[in-house]
Amino acid sequence: MVNNNQLPKLEVCFSPALIEYYNPDEKIVVVVDILRASSAICAGIANGIEKIIPVETLEEAYTYKNKGYIVAAERQGEAVEGFDFGNSPFSYMDQKLIGKTIVMTTTNCTRALAKAKSSYTTVIGSFVNQKALVNYLINENTDTLLLCAGWKNKFNLEDTLFTGSMVQQLTENFSVKCDSAIAAEMLFNQSKNNLTGLINNSSHALRLKHLDIDKDVDYCFKNSIVDVVPLFNGLEIVNHTSKNLISAGDVV
Amino acid sequence: MVNNNQLPKLEVCFSPALIEYYNPDEKIVVVVDILRASSAICAGIANGIEKIIPVETLEEAYTYKNKGYIVAAERQGEAVEGFDFGNSPFSYMDQKLIGKTIVMTTTNCTRALAKAKSSYTTVIGSFVNQKALVNYLINENTDTLLLCAGWKNKFNLEDTLFTGSMVQQLTENFSVKCDSAIAAEMLFNQSKNNLTGLINNSSHALRLKHLDIDKDVDYCFKNSIVDVVPLFNGLEIVNHTSKNLISAGDVV
Repeated sequence: MVNNNQLPKLEVCFSPALIEYYNPDEKIVVVVDILRASSAICAGIANGIEKIIPVETLEEAYTYKNKGYIVAAERQGEAVEGFDFGNSPFSYMDQKLIGKTIVMTTTNCTRALAKAKSSYTTVIGSFVNQKALVNYLINENTDTLLLCAGWKNKFNLEDTLFTGSMVQQLTENFSVKCDSAIAAEMLFNQSKNNLTGLINNSSHALRLKHLDIDKDVDYCFKNSIVDVVPLFNGLEIVNHTSKNLISAGDVV
Repeated sequence: MVNNNQLPKLEVCFSPALIEYYNPDEKIVVVVDILRASSAICAGIANGIEKIIPVETLEEAYTYKNKGYIVAAERQGEAVEGFDFGNSPFSYMDQKLIGKTIVMTTTNCTRALAKAKSSYTTVIGSFVNQKALVNYLINENTDTLLLCAGWKNKFNLEDTLFTGSMVQQLTENFSVKCDSAIAAEMLFNQSKNNLTGLINNSSHALRLKHLDIDKDVDYCFKNSIVDVVPLFNGLEIVNHTSKNLISAGDVV
């Protein structure tokens, strides 16, 4: 029998506005924004985008645009006029982006990333990179906080269901005593056979209905189709493997 | 078939630290702290306590104590030394308190009450007054926010399960499009046949285990055993009926 006291802790935080109550400084924080930013980041890094620079405001995004950067900007689910694209994962898969640095700003995910800055390590999670993420967290064996980006600091279902799925997969390797983690796993277990059915009735789906993004939603619920763990170093998001290479270089 | 667009909105907020994102000003806010403050307030008002003055800090509580008030003070689940009692509902049922004004401060509930101050109306909810509360809210027919006091601003299970039970009972009379309300109802439905079993595995139960409060917990999960709706007028908590009498008096 596993002695839970010796396992690292796994917790879930339902809103970026609550992260301070979960002491992120000594933890790995996994930023989750299933529809669609964290799925798009995973798709982009898997596609070979070298760096993604997240910025919180449209003003910062314009500054980068004026300097010649490729800039992705989304607000209320829609691409913002004057930028290159929004947060559809398919935009991040464009072959022209391989090896490039892009800048992104979104309604929820970039705020969550900013809030997670003080963590020990910040990585990006989604259904599309779940297996790679699970392996990474088991290997790191460190207290971990799954942070839902939510919708404008409110609780949302799709991010929560993903964290519930993570809790289920990590339950042997982590100690789970946090009520939000217990609730997330219960919600996932109750709906795992019809995840997209439930999501189609969620507040987010109702908000996005007029945008005709069914293809995006289908993509965001595909499981483990990319083998990357995007890592946010406080300034930019890179492939976790790249970070290791950079660290090795620094030592030399 | 009910036309949901004409019904008032019912939402759930999982933490006092998130209330600002739910625009409480135009809504009835129901403050919920099942273990044990909101259950104790209902028990006390039903017992005939005339007024309960909630204060946030122990310093304020000491000031009242020095003026001769009866003061209930709880921190980390325990009664604070130097005060009259903590937040066991049974302490609030003492016959000596009938007709009296008491002062209370708790870890979570008094913070939630302070955060709810700007609402249109603030009332207190618990399993023990659920039927009276449901009837009150149906009668008021106004946008309503169920506010979980949580644990130090974190999500907790027992408050959430109660809000899920409220959503289930109000679903015909309110429009429910809020993800946290949908999640709360799913969690309640999944555990309604074994509520105390689930709660005994929650973080709160583990925190309170050494305090030997099983009798309190049993009380807090009894359904609709008191017929009161405690109302917080921004300064003190009174019986909702008393408030109506006061208003009538003011008009005369």
